[in-house]
Amino acid sequence: MSHSSHIIAALVRNHSGVLTRISGLFARRCYNIDSLSVCATEDAGLSRMTICASGDEATIVQIVKQLEKLPDTVKVTRLKGIDDITRELLLIKIQYSPSQKSDIENAVNSYNATIADRSASSAVIELTDEHDKIDAFISIMHKYGIIELVRTGLTAIERGKNKI
Amino acid sequence: MSHSSHIIAALVRNHSGVLTRISGLFARRCYNIDSLSVCATEDAGLSRMTICASGDEATIVQIVKQLEKLPDTVKVTRLKGIDDITRELLLIKIQYSPSQKSDIENAVNSYNATIADRSASSAVIELTDEHDKIDAFISIMHKYGIIELVRTGLTAIERGKNKI
Repeated sequence: MSHSSHIIAALVRNHSGVLTRISGLFARRCYNIDSLSVCATEDAGLSRMTICASGDEATIVQIVKQLEKLPDTVKVTRLKGIDDITRELLLIKIQYSPSQKSDIENAVNSYNATIADRSASSAVIELTDEHDKIDAFISIMHKYGIIELVRTGLTAIERGKNKI
Repeated sequence: MSHSSHIIAALVRNHSGVLTRISGLFARRCYNIDSLSVCATEDAGLSRMTICASGDEATIVQIVKQLEKLPDTVKVTRLKGIDDITRELLLIKIQYSPSQKSDIENAVNSYNATIADRSASSAVIELTDEHDKIDAFISIMHKYGIIELVRTGLTAIERGKNKI
């Protein structure tokens, strides 16, 4: 069995228990959810969820089948990554000293990131990009000292004119 | 009891059941989660979760207390919005015809959005901003015809040098 990363996009009805049921499908098999984001769509009664999970292929196939059978599920699509626009949002707070100002600004500019807030000794940087670019930017920020970071996890939409 | 929006930031251990337990705290009270995002942090054993939920104050106080007591919870903070950097990521696919090209590009530029993909009849636009700005941009896109959209839900970090 191959062990790899999977991206699942699900359109679900906005019921208070739906997230519990869906995350339970993964938890019961001890299948690791790497990231999950869920939010309302243009239709107020529907939410769209993006789940990144890693593990064997056979188990994820089972989970997707059960996900499709849930009464609150409208549609489930497995995204392949290649034909999709995948993005992630990072907010990262780092140590900041005036002597490092130009170094940090160079890194921020080269990643098309933005400094969202600055105090005397810290800065909050915001970056939206693909998963690997976010990882690379975080690696660079380590040398300044990361105070904390929050990332949304991957979200994705297919290229071209089709809906999921 | 006041009915309003609440932002909760939680640092939790990466166990497969933690999302199910946390979303269950909300579901058992039929308390609506508007959006949720969860992803690993700079510490591989910890995830950070941002939950936006709306409902009465007394119930959210109870939920936060129970959230704090879960064995996998490291820290829970209620964010007020004013002293925080709040951001959300939107990917939106719209109908696209050459005659509307400059109209759409003007809207994209005025919101500092980016066209991430373009086909003969559709475009995918990416925008990271505050919640209200995302809502406003979606309203504008309605006139072109929204094919689908996905948003991560709000993520947030406090201003200044402190950690949550």
